[in-house]
Amino acid sequence: MEKGLLVVVSGPAGSGKGTVNHILLESPEYAFSVSATTRAPRPGEVDGVNYHYISVEDFQKRIDDDELLEYTCYCGNYYGTLRAQTEAALEAGKNLILEIEVEGALNVKRLCPEAVLIMLLPPSYAVQEQRLRGRATETEEVILRRLERTREEMEFLSHYDYVVYNYDGQAEACADRIRAIVQAEKSAMRRNPNAKKIFFETN
Amino acid sequence: MEKGLLVVVSGPAGSGKGTVNHILLESPEYAFSVSATTRAPRPGEVDGVNYHYISVEDFQKRIDDDELLEYTCYCGNYYGTLRAQTEAALEAGKNLILEIEVEGALNVKRLCPEAVLIMLLPPSYAVQEQRLRGRATETEEVILRRLERTREEMEFLSHYDYVVYNYDGQAEACADRIRAIVQAEKSAMRRNPNAKKIFFETN
Repeated sequence: MEKGLLVVVSGPAGSGKGTVNHILLESPEYAFSVSATTRAPRPGEVDGVNYHYISVEDFQKRIDDDELLEYTCYCGNYYGTLRAQTEAALEAGKNLILEIEVEGALNVKRLCPEAVLIMLLPPSYAVQEQRLRGRATETEEVILRRLERTREEMEFLSHYDYVVYNYDGQAEACADRIRAIVQAEKSAMRRNPNAKKIFFETN
Repeated sequence: MEKGLLVVVSGPAGSGKGTVNHILLESPEYAFSVSATTRAPRPGEVDGVNYHYISVEDFQKRIDDDELLEYTCYCGNYYGTLRAQTEAALEAGKNLILEIEVEGALNVKRLCPEAVLIMLLPPSYAVQEQRLRGRATETEEVILRRLERTREEMEFLSHYDYVVYNYDGQAEACADRIRAIVQAEKSAMRRNPNAKKIFFETN
């Protein structure tokens, strides 16, 4: 069986990455990586679905034991990806989606150079702003903070492997493009260094 | 409109590249590059379909005028790809398939670094030999020469960008993989160096 691919999907607020990732998860060959966190579950959140909720002591022990693929500390809480969970999914042939922030994405790339980094973007900053204002659920302050954060995130863009645009109403096409990227990566020569040997030695 | 991609497809005898390329050509976004040659048309061959048949003088003048993307001389005849034809197709958004030999492929890559090189392979050398013998239309000498040629061609494999396997009866899946590669390449960050600028400046 072809081994799964570690697929990091980042995207600013309004990029629609949640919608696109959920379309991908409809295929059995895709799975979602559930992060571990030390923050308390919020009402409605389920352990093992939204996050794996673990204690600070447990998290720190796992850091010491090198059990985390990447982690970060944000607002006093740890967030991270459990290596064992990731590897099991990849070995089972699942393409594992990690929906993480730009800093975490670059950490994953450093620790797992075989990961593929995809930045999902609204067609433009102007469209992004329209989308955020169109939600009408957030205060002006939150909207401005998100737009400012986007400016920071875009500084990381050149470290990504792919950029995919999510046009209005085109989430399916966007998911198709990500599927194409995953398929293509599996055929990349740099991922098949033994292709010649295998060609001559297989019956 | 998204510019087309120059897609070089090579593959040893028995890789099924003819079948796979014809599946790709069923989509309007793919076109085939018709080579120019100085050899005489064979019975049944049509000018502009199989090749553009031109004189040696004409071919040499085009070489001098830098009108050829790549060319080679084989058994005393010139074969080459006309640059003007290629560029017109790409500008029209067509993904242009060049079905060429390994040496020509590397020439294209040198002259057009934006070309993507795909090697189509039978699942193994053993399967290739079965396929060639199964045709039962070729002499033992021809079969052995083709297998020997494959050994030479495989020395170029590492210069290709992608390797795609054509399993028995799987030409459609193989064409799908090539389509995925073409889609993915269009989203590659290295092909979108102005993505950040475009994001902020587009309305």
